[in-house]
This record gives sequence, structure tokens and C-alpha cells, in this order.
Amino acid sequence: MRATVIYGERDVRLEDVADPVLVTGRDAIVRVVAACVCGSDLWPYRGVVPVRQPRRIGHEFVGVVEEVGDQVEKIRVGDFVIAPFYDCDFTCVNCRNGFSTSCLHGGAWGANDEDGAFTDGAQGERVRVPHADGSLVATPSHPSDELVPGLLTLADVMGTGHHAAVSAGVTSGSTVVVVGDGAVGLCAVLAAHRLGASRIVAMSRHEDRQALARAFGATDIIAERGDDGVERVKEMFEGVGADCVLECVGTKESMDQALRSARPGGMVGYVGVPNGGPELPMRQLFNTNVGVRGGMAPVRNYIDELLPEVLSGAIDPGRVFDLELPLAEVAEAYAAMDERRAIKVLLRP
Amino acid sequence: MRATVIYGERDVRLEDVADPVLVTGRDAIVRVVAACVCGSDLWPYRGVVPVRQPRRIGHEFVGVVEEVGDQVEKIRVGDFVIAPFYDCDFTCVNCRNGFSTSCLHGGAWGANDEDGAFTDGAQGERVRVPHADGSLVATPSHPSDELVPGLLTLADVMGTGHHAAVSAGVTSGSTVVVVGDGAVGLCAVLAAHRLGASRIVAMSRHEDRQALARAFGATDIIAERGDDGVERVKEMFEGVGADCVLECVGTKESMDQALRSARPGGMVGYVGVPNGGPELPMRQLFNTNVGVRGGMAPVRNYIDELLPEVLSGAIDPGRVFDLELPLAEVAEAYAAMDERRAIKVLLRP
Repeated sequence: MRATVIYGERDVRLEDVADPVLVTGRDAIVRVVAACVCGSDLWPYRGVVPVRQPRRIGHEFVGVVEEVGDQVEKIRVGDFVIAPFYDCDFTCVNCRNGFSTSCLHGGAWGANDEDGAFTDGAQGERVRVPHADGSLVATPSHPSDELVPGLLTLADVMGTGHHAAVSAGVTSGSTVVVVGDGAVGLCAVLAAHRLGASRIVAMSRHEDRQALARAFGATDIIAERGDDGVERVKEMFEGVGADCVLECVGTKESMDQALRSARPGGMVGYVGVPNGGPELPMRQLFNTNVGVRGGMAPVRNYIDELLPEVLSGAIDPGRVFDLELPLAEVAEAYAAMDERRAIKVLLRP
Repeated sequence: MRATVIYGERDVRLEDVADPVLVTGRDAIVRVVAACVCGSDLWPYRGVVPVRQPRRIGHEFVGVVEEVGDQVEKIRVGDFVIAPFYDCDFTCVNCRNGFSTSCLHGGAWGANDEDGAFTDGAQGERVRVPHADGSLVATPSHPSDELVPGLLTLADVMGTGHHAAVSAGVTSGSTVVVVGDGAVGLCAVLAAHRLGASRIVAMSRHEDRQALARAFGATDIIAERGDDGVERVKEMFEGVGADCVLECVGTKESMDQALRSARPGGMVGYVGVPNGGPELPMRQLFNTNVGVRGGMAPVRNYIDELLPEVLSGAIDPGRVFDLELPLAEVAEAYAAMDERRAIKVLLRP
């Protein structure tokens, strides 16, 4: 089959690789219907995270089950399934606590699983899924083609935006600021709207993203950053800042922006993968009582809540995909996202 | 009048100082009935925080109102009052949001208030209280003498322990670990018990403190620290750690202990004044989804909830005072706490 391999900075290639096979009785083989490129895939693509040797890449996909191992009980051949950006057994204590990203037996796509067997990255034609009964969620029936982008967001970006909102404690009447206007930030706007926020500020300098933010429920846009951005936020919220701030970037600057945009006692929900490990300023947090919660989003735990709304059309997070390409053009997909010509690119094998 | 002045490392003296007088119409003059020494007073006493020039010290007291300014409407001469460890107007947006420690017009004892007028420290005979109507809470009647220690804890340590528990999201059925067995840590045990925690681990190496922790509701004691302490906590909670960890010390080591004792997705509520500003390890938090919330406890906001239970005897946080001395022996009070001969010392002018 064909799958994407990253070789180094700005060098991704579609290559012929071995077809995946069942390794354990708990596995499934899924034929990818749609995959996509994640903001975090751009770190190695841009050389920010070094690529030491060529490796498979991708971690978001939906598809159709082609084979299952003999211990798989829930997932069946022919099911249309959503695969979170990691695998998990969905039975361990961490999964039960709502944090399947910390599954005691789970792992990541494009790496070795707990048994030492390689799992494929998602930007390819097929994927071996460990813990199929835990990892995968089957839709009640095969979805129409226009639902595919929305379902694909449940593999990562919509669940991740939702996690930012949940982590920040967004609830009915909350005032919210969203830092970051990528696909996750835009989904965070949608998530905050869905949870009943009374006012949602999207911080964005790009017109197309501002428009989508408004369509997703943003009530205000702030284009300024840094001190000016913080000043604008404070002016808007009684001089003190917002109840909840959703950090969806992962840089030192964006976290600083987020911390300073929260009112005393406010909460920052963060999901941006920390790039270069900015540390949190303890004394500043202590003095202001601003809390910080978030991390790798346990999107598997959120699918049950979000899936019915995507299927019914109540929410349409699939609008974050503003470019669709065949898998053969994966290199162009990366370039388009890198150069900000696209918010998020959907790939069809 | 007589009041305590800190001159430098291990040098506190009771001295004659000018009597406080009303400066603004919003002030009250309170005769101190009982004050105490705080763990945070030990930082300058131990030389960890430098004392650049002799200054008044103390920030916890209860007393009787002797005079009020002409704009004071609620507090009356003769009232028995609890004074939080800071002053606040209790009307600004931050006070209304529940975070009166961030009052837009408030300040600290032993420093200049918003009008530039000096406020007395609490370890003296009288204190000028700015924003008397906001800062002070009057009890319904003059309390019996045995209630005084419990009421005094509402000025700081009980409210602070409660803040740790609230910040960590302790609720019915939570599993809780408390790091720190000083007065605040012990009050945090009591607060977690009061909020319905199902299991409360006190981390303590001192028998007298272990006994009080048990009396306050601790179900388990762990004497180990560092890696061994974390190991014991994990063993106790399904191998992954506790739902809520209350950090009541403020050192790099204690915060590290707290972060590692929380399960994935768990929450650290911290109230220990950060000593030397340990920064929080962003990547570790991201990977585990452990959240961090807390800071200077808005104890004024908590008095309404806690006062009735102290008055009724439902909770008895005053037990943290295991030594009572006349104000004249304030130097011995500091020494006793410094040398861990006492958990917390109550001073009577």
C-alpha cells in the first residue's frame, strides 16, 4: 500500500510500504477513507522537532474496517469507524477516569505498540489498530460523504478544542477568550459556544479564520497580540480579563497571552502541544489565582458526547477543512498548511 | 501601644509604636483579642526572604472594634470581628468573582494602603483596618473564649486549607492527598473531609501532627517523601495516584511531590507561598493532564460558609493552635514555630 513518510525538513513523500497485518487478536485493519494533516505534524515538517530517521506520519483518520482479530467483540468488518489520534483499551483506570490518552496499554500511531509491533501512521491507505474495541468508535451506519469531514474532526481537532473548553471550565454564561485560530482554536470556539459561553473572543489576524470563528459562535474578534492584545481583552471584560481562556497554540508567547488574558481566579485550558517546553510562572499564577489545566486531549472519551451532534448536523466542525486533496498530493497538503494557505487539509487515499 | 517589629534573621521584638488612628472614613480601629504567627512569617524570620529594614509584621487577628470612620455602615463599635489576612472593599469585580485577594482597592497588613497610609501589622495591640465594611466580618455576638482560636483560623489557615481543597475540586467521593502537615495542611485535611472526600492521605512525619490529621479526618498517613512517598501514594490509588492533591508548603520539592501524586487528569490545589518561584514543568503537565490551580486564598469570601460551622462546633480548626503565649513573648512564639516545637502559636495582647 501507499503511505506517507517524513524524511526531514519540508520533505514528506508518499511511498510503497508493506500492507499492515493483524498482530494480536485485539487488532483491526482499517481502510482509510479520510485522513488529514495536524498542526503538530508541522513541527517535524518545519524542522522544529528533528527527524532523526525517515518515519511514518499521521494520526487522524476515519475509515472502514476490513479485518478484525479473534478477540475483537464490538467492532465488526464493514463498520465505518472514527479512530482517535492514539489507541487505548478504554477499560483501564485512566480510561475510566476520562483520560484515555493516559491508557495504561495504549500508544501512538506510527510507533510501536505495547507488544513492540509497529502501528501505521494515518496518512496512508490502511492502518493496523491495536485495542480495536477500545480505540475505535463505529457510527450507527455508513455516513454520507458530506459528514466525513465532521466525523474526521472527532479524531482530534474537535475533541481537542472541546478539551480546552472543558479544562477551562466553560459553562453557561462564561466569558471566553480563544488564543489560536488554527483548526483546534476554531473548534475551541465551537466547543465554548456549544457549552453555553455568553461571550467568545477569537484572537485572529486572518480574515478567513475570523469569518469561520464567527460562524462557530465567536461574538468578538481581537486581531492584536502581546501587550495590546491583553489590553483589548481586559477592556472588554471589566478591566480584569475573561473567566476562561483556551490556549490552542503551544508556544511560550501564546501561553503568556493566555495567562494574562484570564481574570483573577480565571482558568486557562490549554491543548497546544508545548513547543520547547515553556515553564509556567508559579509566582504569577499564585498572585492571580489563575489556574492551568489541559494537555493531550482524551478525544476518545468525548466521541460519545459529540458524535450525535455531528451526525444530526447540530454542529459542523468539518468546516475547518478548507482544502481537500488526494493522498498522492500529501506533500502539497503539508506545504499548504505550512504556508497558511489552508486551515486544515483533508486527504483522500 | 505595643506591636511586633522584625529586624532581621531570628530577630523579632515587641516595641512601643504610635497608636493607630482613623485615616479615611472607611476605616475602623480594632483592638486585637488574638493574633498568631503564620508559616509565611517564618520566611523573613529565617532569612530566606531578606529584611531590608525593620518593619511591622503579622497578618492574622480577631478583635473588638473600638472606632469606625463616618462612612462605615455595617461594622459597629463593640463588634467582635474576624479580619482576613488582607483588606478588601468586597464590592469590586474581583471580590464579586470570589477573589477578594485581588481586590482592586485592597492591600496587606503592615504596608501602605491604597491611599498611601500605613496599616499596622496584626501582631500588636491595635490595627487600623481600611475598607472596614468589606474587610471585616462581625460575629453575631461576642464568642466564648474557647471559640476564639477557631475564629482566628478563619483569618487565614482554615480559609487557606479550604481554598486548596476547592481549587483541587474536592467533592463527595474524591480521593485526596495533602502535602504539608503545618497548620494549613491540617486545615486542608479538615476542609477535604468537610467536602466529602472518601479517602484523605496526610503526608506527615510528626506523630503529633499525624494524630491531629486523623482527628481532622485523614484516613491514611504516609511518612515517606520524594520517590518513596510518590510510590506509596500510587500503590494506594490503583497504581495511578489520587484525584486531588493539596499542596500546602510552597517549595519546589513539595510541588514536585504534589504533581507526581496526582493521577492523570487529577488536580493539584496549591496554597503554599512559592518560595523561590519554582516554575511548573509544562510538558509533564501536558502529558499527564494534571491541572494546577490555587494561590493566595480569598479567605474573606469563604468566611460566610465556614463561620457558622465554627460557631456551632461542627468543625474545630482552632485545634491547630497547640501553644498560647502572651504577646510579650512573641519572640518565643517565632522560635517555637521555627524549631517545630509548636504547630501554630496563638498570641494574646
